[in-house]
Amino acid sequence: MFLASDNAGPAHPQVMQHVLAANDGYAMPYGADDIMDSVTHKLRDIFKAPEAAVYLVATGTAANALALGCYTQPWQTVFCSPVAHIHEDECNAPEFYASGAKLTLVPGADKMTPDALRRAIEQENTRGVHGPQRGPISITQVTERGSLYTLQDLRALTAVAKDFGLPVHLDGARFANAMVALDCSAAEMTWQAGVDVVSFGGTKNGCMGVEAVVFFDPEKAWEFELRRKRGAHLFSKHRYLSAQMQGYLEDDLWLACARQANTKAARLADGLKARGADFLHAPQANMIFASFPRAVHQRLHAAGAKYYIWEGALEGTDPEEMLAARLVCDWSISEQQLDLFLSHFQ
Amino acid sequence: MFLASDNAGPAHPQVMQHVLAANDGYAMPYGADDIMDSVTHKLRDIFKAPEAAVYLVATGTAANALALGCYTQPWQTVFCSPVAHIHEDECNAPEFYASGAKLTLVPGADKMTPDALRRAIEQENTRGVHGPQRGPISITQVTERGSLYTLQDLRALTAVAKDFGLPVHLDGARFANAMVALDCSAAEMTWQAGVDVVSFGGTKNGCMGVEAVVFFDPEKAWEFELRRKRGAHLFSKHRYLSAQMQGYLEDDLWLACARQANTKAARLADGLKARGADFLHAPQANMIFASFPRAVHQRLHAAGAKYYIWEGALEGTDPEEMLAARLVCDWSISEQQLDLFLSHFQ
Amino acid sequence: MFLASDNAGPAHPQVMQHVLAANDGYAMPYGADDIMDSVTHKLRDIFKAPEAAVYLVATGTAANALALGCYTQPWQTVFCSPVAHIHEDECNAPEFYASGAKLTLVPGADKMTPDALRRAIEQENTRGVHGPQRGPISITQVTERGSLYTLQDLRALTAVAKDFGLPVHLDGARFANAMVALDCSAAEMTWQAGVDVVSFGGTKNGCMGVEAVVFFDPEKAWEFELRRKRGAHLFSKHRYLSAQMQGYLEDDLWLACARQANTKAARLADGLKARGADFLHAPQANMIFASFPRAVHQRLHAAGAKYYIWEGALEGTDPEEMLAARLVCDWSISEQQLDLFLSHFQ
Amino acid sequence: MFLASDNAGPAHPQVMQHVLAANDGYAMPYGADDIMDSVTHKLRDIFKAPEAAVYLVATGTAANALALGCYTQPWQTVFCSPVAHIHEDECNAPEFYASGAKLTLVPGADKMTPDALRRAIEQENTRGVHGPQRGPISITQVTERGSLYTLQDLRALTAVAKDFGLPVHLDGARFANAMVALDCSAAEMTWQAGVDVVSFGGTKNGCMGVEAVVFFDPEKAWEFELRRKRGAHLFSKHRYLSAQMQGYLEDDLWLACARQANTKAARLADGLKARGADFLHAPQANMIFASFPRAVHQRLHAAGAKYYIWEGALEGTDPEEMLAARLVCDWSISEQQLDLFLSHFQ
Repeated sequence: MFLASDNAGPAHPQVMQHVLAANDGYAMPYGADDIMDSVTHKLRDIFKAPEAAVYLVATGTAANALALGCYTQPWQTVFCSPVAHIHEDECNAPEFYASGAKLTLVPGADKMTPDALRRAIEQENTRGVHGPQRGPISITQVTERGSLYTLQDLRALTAVAKDFGLPVHLDGARFANAMVALDCSAAEMTWQAGVDVVSFGGTKNGCMGVEAVVFFDPEKAWEFELRRKRGAHLFSKHRYLSAQMQGYLEDDLWLACARQANTKAARLADGLKARGADFLHAPQANMIFASFPRAVHQRLHAAGAKYYIWEGALEGTDPEEMLAARLVCDWSISEQQLDLFLSHFQ
Repeated sequence: MFLASDNAGPAHPQVMQHVLAANDGYAMPYGADDIMDSVTHKLRDIFKAPEAAVYLVATGTAANALALGCYTQPWQTVFCSPVAHIHEDECNAPEFYASGAKLTLVPGADKMTPDALRRAIEQENTRGVHGPQRGPISITQVTERGSLYTLQDLRALTAVAKDFGLPVHLDGARFANAMVALDCSAAEMTWQAGVDVVSFGGTKNGCMGVEAVVFFDPEKAWEFELRRKRGAHLFSKHRYLSAQMQGYLEDDLWLACARQANTKAARLADGLKARGADFLHAPQANMIFASFPRAVHQRLHAAGAKYYIWEGALEGTDPEEMLAARLVCDWSISEQQLDLFLSHFQ
Repeated sequence: MFLASDNAGPAHPQVMQHVLAANDGYAMPYGADDIMDSVTHKLRDIFKAPEAAVYLVATGTAANALALGCYTQPWQTVFCSPVAHIHEDECNAPEFYASGAKLTLVPGADKMTPDALRRAIEQENTRGVHGPQRGPISITQVTERGSLYTLQDLRALTAVAKDFGLPVHLDGARFANAMVALDCSAAEMTWQAGVDVVSFGGTKNGCMGVEAVVFFDPEKAWEFELRRKRGAHLFSKHRYLSAQMQGYLEDDLWLACARQANTKAARLADGLKARGADFLHAPQANMIFASFPRAVHQRLHAAGAKYYIWEGALEGTDPEEMLAARLVCDWSISEQQLDLFLSHFQ
Repeated sequence: MFLASDNAGPAHPQVMQHVLAANDGYAMPYGADDIMDSVTHKLRDIFKAPEAAVYLVATGTAANALALGCYTQPWQTVFCSPVAHIHEDECNAPEFYASGAKLTLVPGADKMTPDALRRAIEQENTRGVHGPQRGPISITQVTERGSLYTLQDLRALTAVAKDFGLPVHLDGARFANAMVALDCSAAEMTWQAGVDVVSFGGTKNGCMGVEAVVFFDPEKAWEFELRRKRGAHLFSKHRYLSAQMQGYLEDDLWLACARQANTKAARLADGLKARGADFLHAPQANMIFASFPRAVHQRLHAAGAKYYIWEGALEGTDPEEMLAARLVCDWSISEQQLDLFLSHFQ
């Protein structure tokens, strides 16, 4: 009953097969391997972006920090949600990679709204040379609370950014989960919606450790390569990153894995609802924030279930009685495990 | 006939088996996996350093830059060879990770000598607050020219460092190749010789992409963890780093691979010598810098041999006729390939 | 009628006399001038801190950023008010000088409360290596809204900091104005209240451009000297900084200037109140945020009065009719000018 | 007998008069003062560069580091002399302001030669993404050894830079001394010779602390303003910088001061030569490196003469007997002092 995160499950066998298959003889290092060529073409196809610049790194934080670094001057500020991964969970990596830039938190509990974003942008840059200058907008899709921006939401946010001439980054650590949930194309969710650069996650959805950074305008390509090397994120035996991504993309495995994760999460959410649990955020992809009695938590804990107790009780509930949980389904979780989990609600 | 680098060969099957074996069910993320526990203990045993702090990262540049970052203040300078990887091949990563520190190049063509090091240190820090302050010494073992520091060499260098109270880093991207060549223990080549922190390479010697950073004094442990996360080098699915290192260390595979590489290089060097080639540096581990006629280069090139033409002809030779090559043997190169290579000398 | 800021008035004649007197013959550079010795002793006396380390720089931003840099690791976050100068008006200088650290904004409109500070601190550092780590607290006294922390307020804030083992910085760009308003000693407002390092302003209160940084624990002294030089803030002809500070401190000129500024502001505030103006913040030192009719603004503008229109109308007022002004009195403003200003209210 | 540096003498009375005159009433802060307007126009006239962007800062290190920062990406390297101030005397400020870039030392004892510069540039950037990328060239005029680049020298160096598309910075801490010695115009020594940005020194030549940064192509103007503010080098009471520069430029005071300093140095050099001293570098402006007997040093020391003993004896001399001195004449040194100095040679 492992529901603590989707960063702790196994890699999908198909991904591993590609890694094994790649482990044969010599391959050109540093991204010049043939597999990377095929990955680049494949991702350009997926995104319907024949000019896109495509790079691989091993961690989501690297993808985010390097992508943002290409669009943020040290005297600028990045606009993001107060619960964004780049703010809360990257130990100042974005600030590091942007040589000391700032993050401006757009007020809100989870998703940024266009109005709040506009106000936040308007409030910066009113002080000439004295205040931080306006920099890129970073949007997390799926959000850290398991919510989705609809295509309309995305377009509304990027429209605000464009009003101010600001670039847009999409943190897609759970890109596939979002796409499956929205039933849209990769192009629709990115450049067609006004996104300039995307962190396209693989690690949480069936890979060992690989993320793509896709620039729709290739002008930043060489700068990214220099930043990646300087950040020590350029792999010599790069083929093992390429092979993971190749396996991940082949036959739409990435979508299949995401569909599995989302379906399982929906099943779990339904089960929880049927058993009286309430939700802090409406579950939309593979993450659930549910409130249920302490007694159930205790039984689950005793039975070895793994998940995070979530701070911040649901409004109107007694924290002595009710406690919230963050429950994340990865692609590999089984129905049996979910049923076992639910069984402890009696 | 791939002799361009030891960073382009395959991972050893034993390493891959451990990775595959690790790919089962859930594992705690971010280095809290059980395999990492065993790796930590194993490396402490190997180094006879029961208190050592042990961390894994995926690239050699990350190992070097993060290790040095822990010992270098932004206003200091790191002493190293002019041909050190940290100076020539890391696109300013050490400067980045040390928040803008400097590198001081100790004059010399390859290995640092104690005298040159002492002079370089003495020349810094004579200007009070105005000049850069003295920082750590970084030693590369095997050097970038395929040379070795003997244990005596190492102790003489670290003695200079200790005279000035400066810490010592060892860039051991080819640590195993050096150990095998010197026929010494890991402890003798590091802390017993005065080294404070070592980048212990795996990638070039049979792994996909993993390096250990070993601090003999664990006081830097927490700072390293923060720096690693901030540098975006902390893997969520860390088990795949751990498993590589586990497979690499099991049954002394790391030494066996290094022995293979060194033995093949010695065989190649003997063959080259017998065919009249001269050496820019005496080959001591798995790298060879040999000078031979252009005509041979042309035949090798036509036959598909891969290696770097090395700038800087051997003194006393006519650059129109003679050209130098850098030839690196990895663990996987076969005798047949070497014989084939040598056959082109006629 | 210049009320735009206290950073635009002249230097006091006594300060200039000291500068002129210092302009005689040779003086040791880089802070080794004799005048600096006397300044150090004088400031140690004023702060009743015989061990304090005392340095001069030319701008308030340099004082803040360098002082904070000594106490902030790059992976930490500085706690401050959302309206702090270090956040809003220094173009990311604190982030720059702290090698990419973050600022955490303690919710509130102006002064930090101990409760809000405690909650902000508690909310950081709950994510192990993933989130930013807790760093120093920076308190602005006088605040950017012209408010004062009482000694009790200060002690309550630093008590929270001490509970978490965090250092405390005081941004005292208007230090003298605060001291005069609180009628307390420099020691009471700093180290006796739990402050570790203070930016002691001179520029806004009668100098040309000089601020002292005073460390009550001298352990940071050498690091500060290196940071100041590396930041390009060490003056070769340092005597001209020393002389300003010497003139500023002599015969309590600094307190006299602050008293003048505060007294004038009080007079202005009384006059405004008598004429029906409302205050966005209760004026406590030399800054006033007052709301009055647009028509008055227009008359003042036509008469050449200089001040900032302040965004954010007073609650309950009609922004079409009423507009807020930020009015700052420096030491040199005359009663005539204030009376002239008030005369436009009819 | 103060010959230790030209950074320890007084400011010229004319400079002080302008500062005093500026100390009247209110002036717009942050460089918007009227005096700055006149300074900008005056410097544009002097440089025959009507489009130039002109800024003031208070220290030479700030001028250099900020100017270079505008032209150096973090992954690049700056080419300079091994004895350049930016390398030896700025405690890593250039690396700090360029977010961790590197400095490449062009081999040589003092002046860079076009050949050595070309070789140094050629040797960088041969490693693709792995090595540091080529950045700007920084030339010091007058050099740190008191030498001059002729206009031909300058044009030859910048021609090399232009061959590689690299920008050129001139560190002109002693700009006026060089101009006077070369008897050329400011335009000839800068943009007409291929220089893109110049640090135009005032501090060492009669000011309290002010340097101009002049960009001949104004495209970097706004970036410089942001970098200056972020570096904490933007003065609120900017008029005191402006006034110094105004006084310095009025009636060619800057050239008169430099002429005085150079003339005195020539007189001193002649006197030294007549008394048998030898020179480590041919004196060309206001700095002298002379070798003379220890006994004379002892007499001078006893008589209170201030200067630096220079490491590195003149070749062919016995260091037990002969010792070198660095002697710098500032604008204010009197003939009497020089005669007194020489009198100790007997």
